[in-house]
Amino acid sequence: MIRLGRSEIEALIDLPDAAPAIEAAYVAASEGRVNLPPVGHITFPEASADCHIKYGHMQGEAHFVIKVATGFPENAKTGIPTGNGLVLVMSAQTGEAKAIFHDEMLLTDIRTGLGGAIASRSLGRKNATRLLVVGTGPQAQWQIRSHAALMPHLSHIGLWGRNPDRVGEAIDALAPDHLVHHEPNLEQAACVADIIVTATGATHPLIRSGWVIPGTHITAVGADAPGKQELDVDLVASADLVTVDLVSQCVDHGETAHAIGQGKLPVDRLVELGTILSDPPQGRRDDHQITIADLTGIAAQDIAMANTVMKATARR
Amino acid sequence: MIRLGRSEIEALIDLPDAAPAIEAAYVAASEGRVNLPPVGHITFPEASADCHIKYGHMQGEAHFVIKVATGFPENAKTGIPTGNGLVLVMSAQTGEAKAIFHDEMLLTDIRTGLGGAIASRSLGRKNATRLLVVGTGPQAQWQIRSHAALMPHLSHIGLWGRNPDRVGEAIDALAPDHLVHHEPNLEQAACVADIIVTATGATHPLIRSGWVIPGTHITAVGADAPGKQELDVDLVASADLVTVDLVSQCVDHGETAHAIGQGKLPVDRLVELGTILSDPPQGRRDDHQITIADLTGIAAQDIAMANTVMKATARR
Repeated sequence: MIRLGRSEIEALIDLPDAAPAIEAAYVAASEGRVNLPPVGHITFPEASADCHIKYGHMQGEAHFVIKVATGFPENAKTGIPTGNGLVLVMSAQTGEAKAIFHDEMLLTDIRTGLGGAIASRSLGRKNATRLLVVGTGPQAQWQIRSHAALMPHLSHIGLWGRNPDRVGEAIDALAPDHLVHHEPNLEQAACVADIIVTATGATHPLIRSGWVIPGTHITAVGADAPGKQELDVDLVASADLVTVDLVSQCVDHGETAHAIGQGKLPVDRLVELGTILSDPPQGRRDDHQITIADLTGIAAQDIAMANTVMKATARR
Repeated sequence: MIRLGRSEIEALIDLPDAAPAIEAAYVAASEGRVNLPPVGHITFPEASADCHIKYGHMQGEAHFVIKVATGFPENAKTGIPTGNGLVLVMSAQTGEAKAIFHDEMLLTDIRTGLGGAIASRSLGRKNATRLLVVGTGPQAQWQIRSHAALMPHLSHIGLWGRNPDRVGEAIDALAPDHLVHHEPNLEQAACVADIIVTATGATHPLIRSGWVIPGTHITAVGADAPGKQELDVDLVASADLVTVDLVSQCVDHGETAHAIGQGKLPVDRLVELGTILSDPPQGRRDDHQITIADLTGIAAQDIAMANTVMKATARR
């Protein structure tokens, strides 16, 4: 059985190489070719903590994948990461356990980063050069790495965060591989961005409707649970194209959930990213549209990442 | 993180030492002190295969447990075990993965064996000396080891199986620790047994109603899935006491499911083993009753076994 830790996994993954598997996962999910049973969930009320078990199998793949992710917010008091987890890779031919990735959430971070960059590449204008990333945590940094890897024509990368010290820390963490500019004013930065990525834990809108000019694409990845929100409802409702990773999830807890809940966005306007990736004419139609990708994270991405690591291990 | 294989786990477990944890698990389950979300399940229709994910947490325990078990019947063609799996032990305080037991189903086999012996010890006559075990597979052998460990007053252990060669192999596997007699005639052996344990994959009744004399206790552990049956419906319906590990499971796929389905056994006659263990007067009342324990296996046992191994590891 293969056992890999976080740093070993990180050394095995090349972002541009991994992207096609994530793209294929979105397409397979939209075409119903992924067997995804309901997510398992157990709570620990005394610690306000929980554990999710996501598992599934993509048709034709040699392995199926079980991802265990825990959230224990009180760990923050003792310096232990609040999020933790591991990934089991099982043979879909024999049921044998083939690998355990003790990834400390790295694979989730990377698949989310790649998912964002795939959405931006698919829906952003071809002549886009200015990227604005909102948020300073690990996911914001993976969004920058992934966008830089998949969209090398982005010549200006700006970063905004509520806490300027955190912005500086993130910029330092990304240097020297990535030259990232500190954006002190979110409204001004949003007005001139070609692509805006929001990767925060915000529960109130950060990006206002009037700030965003025609031609902009926005990828929002922060709303991975109910109660979270990064985009103004009117911005989502008035966009020319609203893409989601999985309609059923985004209706429940994505950015789009707020607009749908207020009756401002009909569910039938949502187009899944996998549909656009397999049929690009369903995506952006011209350079004046405002497009939004609302990504909540799907288990098919986890399966694709695990399969990618398995294949990289075999080549090693 | 602790990583243990099958032989390491086997060396850590002492059956009499582990029994109290399994007894406590039955009691906790019956008293509602175990958080057991619905079992996860994914199927692989092309291979007629599946995977179950059982997980839960017993109140007050430091760890919660995730058990992954696969069944791939076509493995038999290639010599790979048809059942496989592993157990993850996670901290209920921090969510961190603490151990992975690559046990190849050993912990399931042992907890099922101990569960059977606990039921027989609780419900059999105090002066019982003759044990008859029906079945020759690994589980039948664990029933013998467990009954011998918990009921040293059993002075005669008989074994019956459809295939005499398999009976001989099982007797050899248990020697020299256990002296086991080959019973060539099931009816005759059943008539004189004080305790009968059935541990087969039978889908039709093996033990007939008229064969069993007053005072006998029967523990049936084979019916762990729909369609399985080891005991005559009339035997179950006419028993003086019918005990189950978990009413909701046994109504669905235990021995009792058949009798209930035919309208011969009211559900309210079922008494959970945990109830009897915490309140013994609800068990056998005299030496003339026929008692039955219908055990389908519960996740609380898996949690107890994993905790037992964790504690043994800490002592080592």
